Amino acid sequence: MPGSGKSLLSSLLKEKGFRVIVMSDSVRKRFEREARHGERLMDYAKRMREIYGDGIVARLSIEELRGTEDRVAFDGVRNLAEVEEFSRLGNPILIAVHSPPNVRYERLMKRLRADDSSRVEDLRRRDMEEISLGIGGVIAMADYVVVNDGTEEDFKRRVAELMGKIG
Amino acid sequence: MPGSGKSLLSSLLKEKGFRVIVMSDSVRKRFEREARHGERLMDYAKRMREIYGDGIVARLSIEELRGTEDRVAFDGVRNLAEVEEFSRLGNPILIAVHSPPNVRYERLMKRLRADDSSRVEDLRRRDMEEISLGIGGVIAMADYVVVNDGTEEDFKRRVAELMGKIG
Repeated sequence: MPGSGKSLLSSLLKEKGFRVIVMSDSVRKRFEREARHGERLMDYAKRMREIYGDGIVARLSIEELRGTEDRVAFDGVRNLAEVEEFSRLGNPILIAVHSPPNVRYERLMKRLRADDSSRVEDLRRRDMEEISLGIGGVIAMADYVVVNDGTEEDFKRRVAELMGKIG
Repeated sequence: MPGSGKSLLSSLLKEKGFRVIVMSDSVRKRFEREARHGERLMDYAKRMREIYGDGIVARLSIEELRGTEDRVAFDGVRNLAEVEEFSRLGNPILIAVHSPPNVRYERLMKRLRADDSSRVEDLRRRDMEEISLGIGGVIAMADYVVVNDGTEEDFKRRVAELMGKIG
């Protein structure tokens, strides 16, 4: 979910030697060539899903693999059809990062330098958009949930613990 | 999600002085009077949601309040419309219990005394049914996620920590 700390997890994984493939980047390449006038990346992705199925973004991301990578992390899973696509490659480990909505909103407001409460409505609307894509099902079915409700240091410690478990 | 340890959380809350209203019990009362022949509780609840809206089970559960309770826990939230119903009463604290699917399946198999892998398919199908109701969105928007991937003692410790936070 937006503001949960997902990107921070990606950077930590990168430090640990993972190649990180940001799934929205795989879409962005096509988006830059094919987007309709005024279309947002998120709406373009939605249109792609309608045409090619809910697993399309995962398939485009899998295309980025060079076949020589040892440890790969895909950043930005949005639905369980994508998880199925990754499962064809082996046994993916599904990690969710969870932060309480009020903590996420605070972070996002800081990031946006916004402080009016109408912004919170926008953030909530965006949350509902993400949920309508099926992200909640992904969190429900995750192998690991890292809770990010404290400081960055707390989160790093929890990720280190997790890395210890998955090796 | 089934097998996550939600009922254990309820018993712990009961010990702490909460009145626990099990949401499916509120449905069960009507179910016993009104169910169609061969209808499962889950299907009856689905039918109720189609007729009365996604918040109906919460509204039936709210009916159980006596108005004198200090601390009440509603056990079994399935969708965000129910959360909205509870929000009319005050500021509910949304707690999700998360366990990895393989851990949940192991627990459920033990409970069912089953060990054939066809059962796992059934459990997965039930998971997808729960997710289709919107439970993933509830987990995504939870104020707290308690991870229950270890022993019962670990879980109890985490719940005690949580109780310390919410007072």
